Amino acid sequence: MGIGDVGEFGLIGMISGQFKAPEGVTGIGDDCAVIPQRDGSDTLVSTDMLIEGTHFILDDIGPRDLGWKSAAVNLSDIAAMGGRPTGTFLSMALPKGTSTEWVSGFIEGYRDISDRFGVPLLGGDTTASPDRVCVNVTVIGECPHGQARTRSGAMAGDLVCVTGTLGDSAAGLRLILDGRRGIPCAGYLMDRHHAPLPRIDEGIALAASDGVHAMMDISDGIGSDIRHILSASGCGAAVDLSLIPMSDQLRECCGITGWDAAEIAVTGGEDYELLFTVSPRQEPFLTVAHTVIGKITSEPGLVWKGSDRDLCGFRHF
Amino acid sequence: MGIGDVGEFGLIGMISGQFKAPEGVTGIGDDCAVIPQRDGSDTLVSTDMLIEGTHFILDDIGPRDLGWKSAAVNLSDIAAMGGRPTGTFLSMALPKGTSTEWVSGFIEGYRDISDRFGVPLLGGDTTASPDRVCVNVTVIGECPHGQARTRSGAMAGDLVCVTGTLGDSAAGLRLILDGRRGIPCAGYLMDRHHAPLPRIDEGIALAASDGVHAMMDISDGIGSDIRHILSASGCGAAVDLSLIPMSDQLRECCGITGWDAAEIAVTGGEDYELLFTVSPRQEPFLTVAHTVIGKITSEPGLVWKGSDRDLCGFRHF
Repeated sequence: MGIGDVGEFGLIGMISGQFKAPEGVTGIGDDCAVIPQRDGSDTLVSTDMLIEGTHFILDDIGPRDLGWKSAAVNLSDIAAMGGRPTGTFLSMALPKGTSTEWVSGFIEGYRDISDRFGVPLLGGDTTASPDRVCVNVTVIGECPHGQARTRSGAMAGDLVCVTGTLGDSAAGLRLILDGRRGIPCAGYLMDRHHAPLPRIDEGIALAASDGVHAMMDISDGIGSDIRHILSASGCGAAVDLSLIPMSDQLRECCGITGWDAAEIAVTGGEDYELLFTVSPRQEPFLTVAHTVIGKITSEPGLVWKGSDRDLCGFRHF
Repeated sequence: MGIGDVGEFGLIGMISGQFKAPEGVTGIGDDCAVIPQRDGSDTLVSTDMLIEGTHFILDDIGPRDLGWKSAAVNLSDIAAMGGRPTGTFLSMALPKGTSTEWVSGFIEGYRDISDRFGVPLLGGDTTASPDRVCVNVTVIGECPHGQARTRSGAMAGDLVCVTGTLGDSAAGLRLILDGRRGIPCAGYLMDRHHAPLPRIDEGIALAASDGVHAMMDISDGIGSDIRHILSASGCGAAVDLSLIPMSDQLRECCGITGWDAAEIAVTGGEDYELLFTVSPRQEPFLTVAHTVIGKITSEPGLVWKGSDRDLCGFRHF
């Protein structure tokens, strides 16, 4: 049997079944591991690998954007738990023919986002690759003990909310792949794909807010990602497709291309916005800009109001 | 200009020049980053990437050994500082055609070494690779504040010491590449290459010992690695080639093949033994088995007694 038959989550299950996290530690299965420290804080750790040909095409993304994005997708995992990132570790495998200019550009982008969020690069590994560029980033962070928001805290009656707008990154990627970089809104959408902004400050504020019960970042598309919260929390949800926040640029792009904006917003992936659930009584007091898109239900299952389609997100294998 | 022109250490210099570690934190340049915690401990972090075609050939190493080795080389970085590993994070990029049996074997090897040293796997990332297997492991560990041994503490007059025997792994690799798996000592040497044993307990004991001033693990070959201690500590060394500890199996192998055992022991790499310097007055009281191979000198430079060759280790680019 091949890994294509078991899929990404089957593979994760094969691995997690063999390892048991120590008492009190959140291990495999959420955006970050959560490790309690003796000083009353929790350490958060996450790691992500990006491979040329799977996650990016060198002709389509400049080195500066790739450097930024490599850090951004990891910082977003810390944001997803409501933590503050404190350091990153960068492994890079590079083909022998890589130019030093390319490396300088990559480092510049990586440094820019590191500086923006005040997160130092503390170590890493550089090695030769036979052909493809491969990048792995590990990020560590911290939050007060017990304050990290996981995927498992959603409660029936909670409102389902997201930050920002969805689908911009996916539309940007599609414009690149289709060679339609020239349409008016392309610059904005491609930038959202290449240089996503992790919601660090928003995550910290939400984790410190009363009534926020579950949180994660949207990396595979909300249609797929929300199912992780539902299965971890043992509940269902009803989401209204007409409430999914979409940018004017996405609507404009879809007006020109004829694409289905709602489908892109729900199934697209790589938004790196936050998806969270909050008690309806506390929602009005949130200080973070957000959109309510649905409600958590005690009955299992995900109901999309306003659609008869089976919407799901990105599949790795 | 290509990265082949600047080399691995030029590349690390390009990166480290752009990032400054916060006050009190040891960042890029040692086996691990050392991050002081508020509770009086130091957190250690290291990360290493292994790529098919650069670090291993799938036909030559079974999945179980590869799983073991992926964790071992990282645990060795924690051993190199004298820390206790507390958790690992595994990223794996796998071609779609990878069998679940292969994955199970990999996880079995990874779990075996994790269990042996009591280190839980706490998270990771699985993704599709267009062709090659790529593995990245990040390990976190801890030690009492200020007790981590870095590369920069060597002092003139210190004895230069190593644990175990050197060259076994390199000879094992050469036997595999040359298709000489059948000679009597091959099993032992290949096992040392495929399933190295990180010197965790030895590292902890040495870091707790008075007079141990500098320490690192030997991954690229002692001939290359010792130069990191000399340059970080601003000193030189005289090492006696006749004192380099070699196993009976390495000698037997070289007797059959005609290879130069001393050259293999000095330049071979992937020993994952500890290289450390200790004051001559404290050396007799060390509880860890070791061999004295030379002395730190105040004059810079590395002198090999018993050889007129320029001995150096593995070069990545």
